Amino acid sequence: MIPHKKLIGIDWGTSSLRGARWGDQGQVQESREFPRGILTVPPGQFEAVFNSLFGDWMQAPALCLISGMAGSRQGWQEAPYCPCPAGFAELGQHLLWLQPGRMALVPGLSCAGLDGLNTPDVMRGEEVQIFGALQWAGRDSATLVLPGTHSKWVQVQGGRVTHFQTFMTGEVFALMSQHSILGKTLDLGGAFDESVFIQGLAQSQQPGSLLHKLFAVRTLGLFERLSAAQLPSYLSGLLIGEELRTQADTGPVIVVGSQALTLRYTLALQHLGIPSQSLGEEATWAGLHTLASHLTNPA
Amino acid sequence: MIPHKKLIGIDWGTSSLRGARWGDQGQVQESREFPRGILTVPPGQFEAVFNSLFGDWMQAPALCLISGMAGSRQGWQEAPYCPCPAGFAELGQHLLWLQPGRMALVPGLSCAGLDGLNTPDVMRGEEVQIFGALQWAGRDSATLVLPGTHSKWVQVQGGRVTHFQTFMTGEVFALMSQHSILGKTLDLGGAFDESVFIQGLAQSQQPGSLLHKLFAVRTLGLFERLSAAQLPSYLSGLLIGEELRTQADTGPVIVVGSQALTLRYTLALQHLGIPSQSLGEEATWAGLHTLASHLTNPA
Repeated sequence: MIPHKKLIGIDWGTSSLRGARWGDQGQVQESREFPRGILTVPPGQFEAVFNSLFGDWMQAPALCLISGMAGSRQGWQEAPYCPCPAGFAELGQHLLWLQPGRMALVPGLSCAGLDGLNTPDVMRGEEVQIFGALQWAGRDSATLVLPGTHSKWVQVQGGRVTHFQTFMTGEVFALMSQHSILGKTLDLGGAFDESVFIQGLAQSQQPGSLLHKLFAVRTLGLFERLSAAQLPSYLSGLLIGEELRTQADTGPVIVVGSQALTLRYTLALQHLGIPSQSLGEEATWAGLHTLASHLTNPA
Repeated sequence: MIPHKKLIGIDWGTSSLRGARWGDQGQVQESREFPRGILTVPPGQFEAVFNSLFGDWMQAPALCLISGMAGSRQGWQEAPYCPCPAGFAELGQHLLWLQPGRMALVPGLSCAGLDGLNTPDVMRGEEVQIFGALQWAGRDSATLVLPGTHSKWVQVQGGRVTHFQTFMTGEVFALMSQHSILGKTLDLGGAFDESVFIQGLAQSQQPGSLLHKLFAVRTLGLFERLSAAQLPSYLSGLLIGEELRTQADTGPVIVVGSQALTLRYTLALQHLGIPSQSLGEEATWAGLHTLASHLTNPA
């Protein structure tokens, strides 16, 4: 960490904007959250929006690190992806300095797929959560999953992300339940039903294609085998199970995400006999703080 | 076929309404098509819509068979599914007569899945196309695929449908290309690119989950490995390949559907070494005519 500067961390995502300010003892002193994700910001207005919401924090000498979609092509400025393997050293070298020594965009990570075609994969924002979770777990090698719209499965070895894979699990759940024919029979207002979730999870582990298994969400409703309120739990089990199906030979997993999602993934992993521990979204702040503490020679 | 009656066949689907009238020699004499799928018809108005569009055909003594979604819960009247195994005899017994001996709804088919949970599957309208295609091919046992919004893979033995499976392939293509994050990078106006389609197909046969492979449609665009106009062909190959992945040990296949879709499925099957022959949507008329010719004792 650069001496005599306060740390400010910003997590600027697609749909929300969060910020935290640290005190001298390394604890978060104040945090703010706004519904000002990058989709709400017109091109060229990022600096103005930032100044209006966090300008007071920047009055004192400060180091501000900004992670998330603010560094994407549609964001403040494009911070090119840092290729894997990547740890603190590589992230630090790839920071995109908006104001030298004072304000930087944290780049996302890219990696080449192991599918023979080297199909690329990318993340933006999760890399900070990963390093925060490792710090919290006291580990420098681990398998992590960060569930969400685009779930990430991540391999870390010796403090560096070596490989990761994105799964469109959350987005497919939203599309299926809101825009497909399945939406006509299911009731998204239903409470989470654990046994029906496990039923969907079990079905996902059977042979056959997801494209077929999804249609059962409709027929199980049509034939009144499940109620409209139970169908979202079944669909959720089916999709999370499909994601986990290809990770079944993994060791213990660290799950990082919102409480609702980590609960479901923990349940699913437990059912498949995979040990796990979970951490909430505070991983972002731990990650930005740790990244800052590794910066010895900014800009 | 009931003597001294002319046959009228109606295919009343979700989004379109088609009708055909046969001459005395068993050939289609006249056909009509209207954008009056069941979604455009208010409850209780099906008879009025039918009379306004086909009433003149019903002036003479006629037998009218109506297949498709008109027999669904949202249609003219609900014709309960005919359980598999089902051939002409079972379909004939399950006709829902709107006017005895004169006008009937052809029921859809249902079957129990082979997944241990007996998860039900259903079709409505395709059963008529299946019997038409068998008539055309001169076969009473075959594997058929009817690609579309909800693709059907069908096993027929001894003239009866013994088992079938639905795949949401077409609907997932539409959702992904129009409503998901993939839609931001792909151009649906692009011409069909055969080699890119085969590239997606090859990728679909690799290990791993569809939920991960779908995300590559975005990254291949981001990294300019494929152009926006090529991405729909890649997505199509990926999804059709995922559908075919679980059918790889099948024998020769009869493909029944629109020209654009049968072309893609024929290509994909060829690439996977599965012989096929294809038939257009005229299978519906052949199927209704054959079904009528098997009716000996209507109502």
